[in-house]
Amino acid sequence: MNDVQNQTDKRNIDIQKVGVKDVEIPLVIQRKLNGGKIDSQRVYAKAKMSVSLNREFKGTHMSRFIEILNDYRKQNLVGVDIKKMLHDMRERLGSKNAYVKFDFKYFIKKNAPKSGLEALMCYDCYFEGILDEDDYKFYLGAKVPITTLCPCSKEISDYGAHNQRAIVKVKISYPEDKHIWLEDLIKSIEKTGSSEVYSLLKREDEKAVTERAYENPKFVEDVLRDIVLELQNNKIINFFEVEIEAKESIHNHNAWAYQKTCKENFS
Amino acid sequence: MNDVQNQTDKRNIDIQKVGVKDVEIPLVIQRKLNGGKIDSQRVYAKAKMSVSLNREFKGTHMSRFIEILNDYRKQNLVGVDIKKMLHDMRERLGSKNAYVKFDFKYFIKKNAPKSGLEALMCYDCYFEGILDEDDYKFYLGAKVPITTLCPCSKEISDYGAHNQRAIVKVKISYPEDKHIWLEDLIKSIEKTGSSEVYSLLKREDEKAVTERAYENPKFVEDVLRDIVLELQNNKIINFFEVEIEAKESIHNHNAWAYQKTCKENFS
Amino acid sequence: MNDVQNQTDKRNIDIQKVGVKDVEIPLVIQRKLNGGKIDSQRVYAKAKMSVSLNREFKGTHMSRFIEILNDYRKQNLVGVDIKKMLHDMRERLGSKNAYVKFDFKYFIKKNAPKSGLEALMCYDCYFEGILDEDDYKFYLGAKVPITTLCPCSKEISDYGAHNQRAIVKVKISYPEDKHIWLEDLIKSIEKTGSSEVYSLLKREDEKAVTERAYENPKFVEDVLRDIVLELQNNKIINFFEVEIEAKESIHNHNAWAYQKTCKENFS
Amino acid sequence: MNDVQNQTDKRNIDIQKVGVKDVEIPLVIQRKLNGGKIDSQRVYAKAKMSVSLNREFKGTHMSRFIEILNDYRKQNLVGVDIKKMLHDMRERLGSKNAYVKFDFKYFIKKNAPKSGLEALMCYDCYFEGILDEDDYKFYLGAKVPITTLCPCSKEISDYGAHNQRAIVKVKISYPEDKHIWLEDLIKSIEKTGSSEVYSLLKREDEKAVTERAYENPKFVEDVLRDIVLELQNNKIINFFEVEIEAKESIHNHNAWAYQKTCKENFS
Repeated sequence: MNDVQNQTDKRNIDIQKVGVKDVEIPLVIQRKLNGGKIDSQRVYAKAKMSVSLNREFKGTHMSRFIEILNDYRKQNLVGVDIKKMLHDMRERLGSKNAYVKFDFKYFIKKNAPKSGLEALMCYDCYFEGILDEDDYKFYLGAKVPITTLCPCSKEISDYGAHNQRAIVKVKISYPEDKHIWLEDLIKSIEKTGSSEVYSLLKREDEKAVTERAYENPKFVEDVLRDIVLELQNNKIINFFEVEIEAKESIHNHNAWAYQKTCKENFS
Repeated sequence: MNDVQNQTDKRNIDIQKVGVKDVEIPLVIQRKLNGGKIDSQRVYAKAKMSVSLNREFKGTHMSRFIEILNDYRKQNLVGVDIKKMLHDMRERLGSKNAYVKFDFKYFIKKNAPKSGLEALMCYDCYFEGILDEDDYKFYLGAKVPITTLCPCSKEISDYGAHNQRAIVKVKISYPEDKHIWLEDLIKSIEKTGSSEVYSLLKREDEKAVTERAYENPKFVEDVLRDIVLELQNNKIINFFEVEIEAKESIHNHNAWAYQKTCKENFS
Repeated sequence: MNDVQNQTDKRNIDIQKVGVKDVEIPLVIQRKLNGGKIDSQRVYAKAKMSVSLNREFKGTHMSRFIEILNDYRKQNLVGVDIKKMLHDMRERLGSKNAYVKFDFKYFIKKNAPKSGLEALMCYDCYFEGILDEDDYKFYLGAKVPITTLCPCSKEISDYGAHNQRAIVKVKISYPEDKHIWLEDLIKSIEKTGSSEVYSLLKREDEKAVTERAYENPKFVEDVLRDIVLELQNNKIINFFEVEIEAKESIHNHNAWAYQKTCKENFS
Repeated sequence: MNDVQNQTDKRNIDIQKVGVKDVEIPLVIQRKLNGGKIDSQRVYAKAKMSVSLNREFKGTHMSRFIEILNDYRKQNLVGVDIKKMLHDMRERLGSKNAYVKFDFKYFIKKNAPKSGLEALMCYDCYFEGILDEDDYKFYLGAKVPITTLCPCSKEISDYGAHNQRAIVKVKISYPEDKHIWLEDLIKSIEKTGSSEVYSLLKREDEKAVTERAYENPKFVEDVLRDIVLELQNNKIINFFEVEIEAKESIHNHNAWAYQKTCKENFS
């Protein structure tokens, strides 16, 4: 059969990215347990993959992306495997650059603050890798829910203060010989809210969480600055992007704040 | 050209609903102004339309739905026009039954509680009409944001109480010789929260809203019961369905409550 | 601490449903392998749970839903466990009725039609259970993608025919002493399209799929009728609801068809 | 009342963006009619706004964003007003930088290719403006649905070819003394598909659209290259970003291609 994709193209345009997206796939992700032991978790993921396409070729071979996914889905993925996968993609598709993003649902056990009862929290996370000629970058991302309690509302009101669920979206990068666990990244974000968010709270826990939030009022600006301080002080991290969005309980719109920083050693 | 849709079908199955959905369209909706005057608002809408299809026909004529939409989109719609439109659909498509739902974005001016400053609130609303042989039913729907403040959290905590944005979804029906304005339905829902939600609040308003919520703690169960009382006591309404969903500020999941009631005169 | 939820309520209203929703949780679902063997799959799920609340109580105990989820999430779920879970919910929450719905992402291996290459397909599925006093109902649901090719477009055009991805949403019920596997339900739906949808297709497969669709043109009405015939003829099924929605490639809106049937033995 | 926002902050961090998002608002957008006449269209929009916040201030004044929106929502917006609005935001909020994005639903009349029948198409569009000290940038964005028909499927099959709805997302920038109408941008994208997408098609139109797509097979790579050529050749445009995503009718995942280009005169 004629291979239309391999026909020559005369428009003289190198394509930066072409591939597949919204491919649903189960993945195995390495995780860190309490005590530092390592095992793995099978997660639900959506894959977005692409390669560059040279000007002389009419099209890429879409089915090869799915075949590569099939090869990698049973391995224990951490950052280092993403690089290997990108090299494989590049080779099997004959391209200069390669890109992959896995958005996945990640569960972590969390204990209630007083009763100590354990339940699972689910976080939207991602691994993103870019191989641009010889330059490899890896990004780790997570969406972390927290509570914010408004300092202005507390200050001006005789009692009470409006508070709400807020979502922190964080994206970081670090050199390939380093490693940051999702468990640690998420924990460092959770502590920056007026209070943390939990799946299971008994009455004694609800009291603790309510009072902690009231003692600890924070604007989205405050949360952002505390996270920025945290990420700036982490020597391993050489790039970060943070967005916090608070689903204001007194409005039908949201408050948000955003920061993006490339440190010196990040080109 | 051969009309495939009019070919006979031998499977012997009457189809209950066949048509188009996610048709984006601007509509003109009648509205009630302060003081009771009536004018209209041009809204963004999504239409879902269908007719029944008799067992002898292979297919319906999809393009006619779009033509009918074109005829009606410039008219000032209220409940009564929906019935006329359904009769038109039935006639032009040669069917026994017809169905239409318009989901639309509806703006209402709202004043802040202390400063009196005016701003627009936007509500997701819908008109839904069913013509089943000679039986016509019209449904009016709205999603109304409110604030809920947790009575348990207030009771057990030395200070503060968690609160959050909650969404009430309400759907009502009433006889075709009666009329209920969206403005009145929405207002009656908004007053059932611990506090109302606003687009624009200055500091004096924020104080009022915060304190009102703290003075007025409510579970989703409380909000639901107050709405049910309100709708039961409204003699015009002969059917209602209510769901309230609170985006808990201390959890990453939601609390919800639901009730559906058909009064005696509703078959 | 004071238990506010147990306080008496004077509004005299029994609440039909109150509980939690959008609780993200990993579940273990029993599955049927090729050859009829049974094992299980760990899936990502969202839980929606509720109980009824008697008029004398002010509120339900939300944290108990999460505790019950924790107990059940490690078991191998099939329809029968849902009933047990509902009885547990009712008992631990002191209510007359209980409700649960698990929406989950379910993977099934599928072979390409010619090359036989294997890859995973992911389907949005759900288990839904209702315990209303002594009446128990279980619903099984799935969203199944297929291809539809327009018979009218084929008939009137000198060559080609527009075709598109369509989604079938199917919901069925059957008596509690019977069982239908998701694998079998999904397979029976997939064969009703102009062609099936696959994750991995090589060139020889793409040729087969393209030609099969062209040889087998179908309106949404045709797909609906074929599914209705299939479900009517299945003696085990006593209730079904089907919606098919085609993402028309020549429009920016969708065509849809819908049918709902309760057989005699379903009250 | 104490103005908490004006308190000093000691963390020494300038915030890049802080503001409001998901503010639903009706806007008035200038539009170009057939024949070149200009009038305006009232649209449904969602606003995202922010300013920078100097290190010495604890918080911004969220309510002022809503007040500014209220001032601008009745004006006829085109690119030039966005700049004025950003200057206003900066002044009223005492900041160095300002940002605004309006996502809106935009209707354009479109005639069927043979019958000439007219109906409305709705496009997701946006205006985005950034004022960074003295540097002003304006971006115009649109999502445009088209049809793609697979060249490989056509080549290898004895008859037929799979085709599908595809969505082009385009974002462009041009100097502030120039102007490009959404109507012209959208038209230039629509012609790059295998065929265009319409709201209303009678049988003669459906034949024309089907045959045109079959005569004109295109990969996502082909569509991307044709759009890149078009945008490169437009001397007014100094930046563009294009993504095309095809909802493959034979798969349950999508094919995509992406390109981003800054021309010389764009810093």
